[in-house]
Amino acid sequence: MSTHTKASILIGDGLADRPVADLDGRTPLEAADTPYLDRVAAEGECGQMDPIAPGIRAGSDTSHLAILGYDPFEVYTGRGPFEALGIGMDIERGDICFRCNFATVEGDLALSADGQFTGATVVDRRAQRIAKGTDQLVEAVNGITLEDVTCYVKQSVEHRAALVLRGPGLGAAVSDVDPHDANAPPHGAEGEDEASQKTARIVNQLVLRSWEAFKDHPVNRQRVSEGKLPANILMPRGAGVAPHLTPFSERYGVPGACVVETGLIAGIGRYLKMTVPQVPGATGGADTDEAALARAVLEMLADHDFVLCNLKAPDLGGHDSDPRTKMAAAQKFDNLVRDVLESAPDDLHLAITADHCTPINFGDHTGDTVPIAIRGPNVRPDSVRSFGERAVVAGGLVRIRGFDIMPILTNLMGVQEKYGA
Amino acid sequence: MSTHTKASILIGDGLADRPVADLDGRTPLEAADTPYLDRVAAEGECGQMDPIAPGIRAGSDTSHLAILGYDPFEVYTGRGPFEALGIGMDIERGDICFRCNFATVEGDLALSADGQFTGATVVDRRAQRIAKGTDQLVEAVNGITLEDVTCYVKQSVEHRAALVLRGPGLGAAVSDVDPHDANAPPHGAEGEDEASQKTARIVNQLVLRSWEAFKDHPVNRQRVSEGKLPANILMPRGAGVAPHLTPFSERYGVPGACVVETGLIAGIGRYLKMTVPQVPGATGGADTDEAALARAVLEMLADHDFVLCNLKAPDLGGHDSDPRTKMAAAQKFDNLVRDVLESAPDDLHLAITADHCTPINFGDHTGDTVPIAIRGPNVRPDSVRSFGERAVVAGGLVRIRGFDIMPILTNLMGVQEKYGA
Repeated sequence: MSTHTKASILIGDGLADRPVADLDGRTPLEAADTPYLDRVAAEGECGQMDPIAPGIRAGSDTSHLAILGYDPFEVYTGRGPFEALGIGMDIERGDICFRCNFATVEGDLALSADGQFTGATVVDRRAQRIAKGTDQLVEAVNGITLEDVTCYVKQSVEHRAALVLRGPGLGAAVSDVDPHDANAPPHGAEGEDEASQKTARIVNQLVLRSWEAFKDHPVNRQRVSEGKLPANILMPRGAGVAPHLTPFSERYGVPGACVVETGLIAGIGRYLKMTVPQVPGATGGADTDEAALARAVLEMLADHDFVLCNLKAPDLGGHDSDPRTKMAAAQKFDNLVRDVLESAPDDLHLAITADHCTPINFGDHTGDTVPIAIRGPNVRPDSVRSFGERAVVAGGLVRIRGFDIMPILTNLMGVQEKYGA
Repeated sequence: MSTHTKASILIGDGLADRPVADLDGRTPLEAADTPYLDRVAAEGECGQMDPIAPGIRAGSDTSHLAILGYDPFEVYTGRGPFEALGIGMDIERGDICFRCNFATVEGDLALSADGQFTGATVVDRRAQRIAKGTDQLVEAVNGITLEDVTCYVKQSVEHRAALVLRGPGLGAAVSDVDPHDANAPPHGAEGEDEASQKTARIVNQLVLRSWEAFKDHPVNRQRVSEGKLPANILMPRGAGVAPHLTPFSERYGVPGACVVETGLIAGIGRYLKMTVPQVPGATGGADTDEAALARAVLEMLADHDFVLCNLKAPDLGGHDSDPRTKMAAAQKFDNLVRDVLESAPDDLHLAITADHCTPINFGDHTGDTVPIAIRGPNVRPDSVRSFGERAVVAGGLVRIRGFDIMPILTNLMGVQEKYGA
């Protein structure tokens, strides 16, 4: 077969939900009017999907890794690398990456010879969710060298930042500096093995340097004069080593693109060396321009065989207690699917699904199954006629895992190598 | 979320079955009148479960390990450790544990320099299922030290016992002394590696010592005078090393209890440091007081977030050729579910299932699927209205594994950490 089809996965972030009393026991997706989702279900093959495995509460990062065919149990060693990627930092295989908070300590911080912090206590782990000036604070520590290790720091939103350590002989089995509670001193990082002990030593020195650089920084003098707590320390946590991931195009033999709204998923796409276009109008919020996302998907399909698209709005709806907000986000997802269906080539293999549940009554991700439907040439249409958490139970895909999607799609597309003779 | 629900799994031991001609092709569970099992199915989400994996004939130990979330393929190295736990022996990580039979040999046993037994032949592997006096026999060998290894022996029911070896440098890759046939000499245990060769040497010495201690023991003189075969040797088999299992409460962050009738499952519960209450009236037989089990479940739920309960009766029914016996046991299970449902908090997440099939026409465990139903807040009720091997096929859980239950329950309970961001 010399010809093959193209495929796209459209993901409603956190779209799946649980029965809601205010909706007569329906889920927001079941209650919303979504004719194009239903059309995909009716034309295609449906089922339930465990993004990771039954019952496991997937993050958006672990779920998207699995959906793209990279087993998170093998490659996901902590949020650090993906957090760093998500805010546009360059990371390289072997880098040790951390999430960090700008925090407030009181006292006079010191680092003992055995790697413990003394003299100061954390009074606010988030420095009152500092909104401005973290870019200036970061300049004071970004790029410094400790021993033979270079430390890269970049701010994210509010009190958040990421730290990347690059140098020889580093390990990732390092405990958190963040004590996860106020009224405790920062914890001296500890490493489980020799390489991780080196990492711990560097991290503790960096934390001390951040305090020295931040405590009298103009940003903090200004904050104190306004009656605010100073953001006078950087507290790393969640160490992870940047894994080796085979680039998408190498793995599947076709070029791929990610049309996404959040930094975390954009970071995964970039790490896999997929095309990650800027999409003006894609705000990542409830007001996002889903038509712009659809146009980007169609543009990417012109010269990529595979396009993943994530619409963030349903996940935000899950954090809201009003089911109508989430129904509106489901409607936005329906618009996205409509626009893609109406202008894509007829033989496009289109999968629609969610990366996890974010039930409005729970307000965070849960490990329930999500619905999935795949339409396009050569699928075996089943009896399912609408796209909902329970409607798909009767579908031909039965119950699959996120990790199964890419084999299923590359099989339908006709680009998968035969396994065996 | 600071609040979470509690959960209980009620397990009908060997409850699932195969179609029975005398029941017009129904299974005992399908034929029995079980309105409360049906109620859980109607209110909840149903499916089929492979206790271990499709087609695998699960033991009660491997199945319960899997259901509690401990992968038996990783942690189960032989029945020995769980057998020893089941009869109340203390075992420690690293102990080498065996099942043993009290058996009858004829001749004058000797142990050759190369570790082979000569001079005697096994005439009854079970010493005519000796019922009395094994406690006195055990006293003659329990606690002896061979080289630097202490040997603990304890009798179980009839001809059964367990042996625990504790000492440095022992391995578990040891062949059985029990020849598994009469008219053969006991087999000299052999070890695959250096550590296991040490174990084999100790075991062979212990077997010889048991013969020396038992052959003229008053218990056996009495038996011979009554025309019975003497129980004049201990024959170990099924070596396993006591594995490291993270305690249940540490694994899941909530305390758990096991309300069970059999020593084997009680041993697993104790090994996981779960609460394992004594339940007066729980005989483990067809005459057991299921109301007492239900009361114990409810009592445990007062200060534990998770309670597993196993009713042994259906498994015994499976060993009987009369389907009515097993139907009566299914009715007992229905009573247990009724009593728990009627007095438990409304928001209890209740799962009902079996740990394996014990078909009445097979008389032992088989690897067919078992039915499962889960009810409680936030489940997505499906179209299934009765609890039976075939009725659950249409359910929303579709087909899960025993190992999936705890992630599914801890997700519903709201106590599971998110995997990723």
